[in-house]
Amino acid sequence: MLVPLITAIVYLEKIQNIISYLIPMAGLIITGYFLGYFKKAKDTRMGAREGFVIVSISWVLMSLFGCLPFLISGYVKDFFTAFFEISSGFTTTGASALTSEELEIMLNEGAHSLLMWRSFSHWIGGMGILVFILAIIFESNDGSALHILKAESPGPQVGKIVSKMKLSSRILYLIYIGMTVLQIIALLICHIFDKNMTIFDIFIMTFGTAGTGGFATTSASCALYAPCSQYVIAIFMLLFGINFSVYYWLLIRNFKDIIKNEELRLYLIMVIAAVAIITIQVVNRYASIEEAFRHSLFTVASLVSTTGYATTDYWSGAQGSWPVLSLCILLFLMLCGACAGSTAGGMKQSRVLIITKYSKSKIKSMISPRRVEVIRLDGKPLDKKVVDSTVSFFVLYIIVIIASTLLISIWNPAMSAEDATPLTMITASLSCISNIGPGLGAVGPAGGFSNFSWFSKLVLTIVMIAGRLELYPILILFSRNTYKKST
Amino acid sequence: MLVPLITAIVYLEKIQNIISYLIPMAGLIITGYFLGYFKKAKDTRMGAREGFVIVSISWVLMSLFGCLPFLISGYVKDFFTAFFEISSGFTTTGASALTSEELEIMLNEGAHSLLMWRSFSHWIGGMGILVFILAIIFESNDGSALHILKAESPGPQVGKIVSKMKLSSRILYLIYIGMTVLQIIALLICHIFDKNMTIFDIFIMTFGTAGTGGFATTSASCALYAPCSQYVIAIFMLLFGINFSVYYWLLIRNFKDIIKNEELRLYLIMVIAAVAIITIQVVNRYASIEEAFRHSLFTVASLVSTTGYATTDYWSGAQGSWPVLSLCILLFLMLCGACAGSTAGGMKQSRVLIITKYSKSKIKSMISPRRVEVIRLDGKPLDKKVVDSTVSFFVLYIIVIIASTLLISIWNPAMSAEDATPLTMITASLSCISNIGPGLGAVGPAGGFSNFSWFSKLVLTIVMIAGRLELYPILILFSRNTYKKST
Repeated sequence: MLVPLITAIVYLEKIQNIISYLIPMAGLIITGYFLGYFKKAKDTRMGAREGFVIVSISWVLMSLFGCLPFLISGYVKDFFTAFFEISSGFTTTGASALTSEELEIMLNEGAHSLLMWRSFSHWIGGMGILVFILAIIFESNDGSALHILKAESPGPQVGKIVSKMKLSSRILYLIYIGMTVLQIIALLICHIFDKNMTIFDIFIMTFGTAGTGGFATTSASCALYAPCSQYVIAIFMLLFGINFSVYYWLLIRNFKDIIKNEELRLYLIMVIAAVAIITIQVVNRYASIEEAFRHSLFTVASLVSTTGYATTDYWSGAQGSWPVLSLCILLFLMLCGACAGSTAGGMKQSRVLIITKYSKSKIKSMISPRRVEVIRLDGKPLDKKVVDSTVSFFVLYIIVIIASTLLISIWNPAMSAEDATPLTMITASLSCISNIGPGLGAVGPAGGFSNFSWFSKLVLTIVMIAGRLELYPILILFSRNTYKKST
Repeated sequence: MLVPLITAIVYLEKIQNIISYLIPMAGLIITGYFLGYFKKAKDTRMGAREGFVIVSISWVLMSLFGCLPFLISGYVKDFFTAFFEISSGFTTTGASALTSEELEIMLNEGAHSLLMWRSFSHWIGGMGILVFILAIIFESNDGSALHILKAESPGPQVGKIVSKMKLSSRILYLIYIGMTVLQIIALLICHIFDKNMTIFDIFIMTFGTAGTGGFATTSASCALYAPCSQYVIAIFMLLFGINFSVYYWLLIRNFKDIIKNEELRLYLIMVIAAVAIITIQVVNRYASIEEAFRHSLFTVASLVSTTGYATTDYWSGAQGSWPVLSLCILLFLMLCGACAGSTAGGMKQSRVLIITKYSKSKIKSMISPRRVEVIRLDGKPLDKKVVDSTVSFFVLYIIVIIASTLLISIWNPAMSAEDATPLTMITASLSCISNIGPGLGAVGPAGGFSNFSWFSKLVLTIVMIAGRLELYPILILFSRNTYKKST
């Protein structure tokens, strides 16, 4: 919380704001201190179960401490709203439960630091806080850290770039910082021409992009920025959606692996195809081809990377919503997400690949039941276990979306009948599990999550964390078997 | 086609109508005669591949011949509309591409026989035409008939009630006829009080209910009938959604198997829970509690059994659409469908059970990776192959829905922007793959499929047949490997 604290001091904010960071900071230090006093258990071996539980509880605790500044400073009155908001930050969802008025008050009445905290949480969440802690604080050789990494890192396979855990996460982290700095520089150059983007905005937008989060300073998101800034943000959203291993390969000039990477190829093909189709569909809605292309590129980049920024309102804009094919393509991209091993959410392109190949092999095996079909990725045969767990992940993903849709439909007294449509509920669930931010209907790019009841907000918060941790840790937390004696 | 032919003669319809049945009948006889002349291939063994291809081609041919009466009689001008309509009949979907005006013309200007043909196709389709043919025409001992049955019968396991194929399908068929007769008698009794339901209507409604189809005589569906008729139809819709083995067990007084049947239990629990929740939600929209209960029961029965009749417009009715929770529950029921081994479509309750148990076992195995979890159904352990194929079925089901949604979004020039929403496209695809009929949005209970383009109609027709044949036969028809030399 040093970053928002410094922001508060720089902007000479009122003393209550500064206290609102000091209290949770003190709380965290004290908690950590007392946790150190805990007696060591006899059995200190750490299995998958322990790894999952530690990660889940850490994320919930993190969000509990993280929402304190909002509450103590008094800018957010309701606990569930604050909890939703900071979870949305840490999970890099970027769905806001604050109304546009509340955001304006924060920006104009001296609470820059809260906005900074909100967006900085994206940046922290982006890479996974625990990987961060691992990289900096302790080195582990007994494999227990691997269980934490496994529970937290995105994608079907744990991608250890180099064999040593600590080194591996440090490299990823350096790439992450490097790209963040690059984006800040690029936006500073745009700043010369773009007077709508303040220096404060540059930091907010960069943290939001790097973490593929999506919190902006106003509810207008990126609509008011100059085209050059929009292009820069769109390109960086796409870049942060690529597997970070690719950048490592670039650095060590291992071009062979990059070309062989089927996931990267699928990702690029999907993005190019989507942008092409949508540009053609919306070209007569905007003043020029350039504008239609820019909005298409930005929206596709924003949704496929699960960031959630917007330059145009594709749902309820002045010219009506985009054509239905464009909207369905966007929904499809929201489900797929970007590459594994990036900061993006969603199912991940590599899972889409594996699921597609799996389906093909199932149809083939129906034709000739005796042939055993081997599924290959990047030229190498995939372990049957990886395929199995990918398929079960897909099944659970769909089940969680269905369950969440039903649960958040139950009770939302503040929502009007026009807003509370099945499309709103389905896309809100999809948006939260994939850590995107906006959906369609009432949660479209111009809408928000402020009208949901506290119960729906709580459900969506859990879904966001479940999506960020790739389901299992949170599902295990809700399973009775976890608390039974070890088998 | 004897049934509509007789109808045409009874109603003294114009000569063109009678010819419109005689031509395809002659065509079918000639085709069959020439097929008999085909040289027998050297290798007459029939494998899974041949079974799937035969069934798929049969269904397409059947629909091609079946749509001729509509076209020859001149009541339907467009080939794709007629093809969609009769496929919707045979697959027991009940989605109509005819406008309400076209239906009125048929009813009032002497084309009762066409309406009868449309609804009778439900009844034929309900039990699976090929099982019908099997039961009547030939007895097979070499197992090749099993491949046809496997490709066509609904549910994850082929339920042979008694070991002999022919006997087994005859028993199912007798139960089917018996229940149809029962419903006709029940509706005839209602007819005494219900002057809105003609004798003609009784047959149409019974065929539609028995096949869980959903074609009615007017676009008002069942809204104008008396409450007692509505209750009878609702109860029979639920009954036709139950696994027919249950009735066989009832006949032979095997109550133990009925009580042990987990699928039946889940089905009843789901129906009761859904009716209870929806009744509470809509009670203040109708004049009395009875009316709210009746509409809830009817709608739940109609959608879970994938029939698609309606007594009230839950989407765009006079009091606005039903609350969002009710709508989401209905969508969920549409995805689940009724029991395996019934005439209903959808994923089937037993698959829902297996998928749920599979997900639980996956979460458990994450906690203790070394334990092997056995999935049980009705107390007996399930073969791993059955679980695997159920999971891949679920995955393919979702993929087909996604693909269909994208394809039918491409081009529908006749559809207004308000109608062409993602919700319309998603629920139209869901409705067609589950063989239901109505969805939400433009394809809601008061809407229809008439505004879709010929391309979308063709896609939805294929999706309907794919859904009716439980995906594999049609997917295999589109797979290149099918036409390769045998392995």
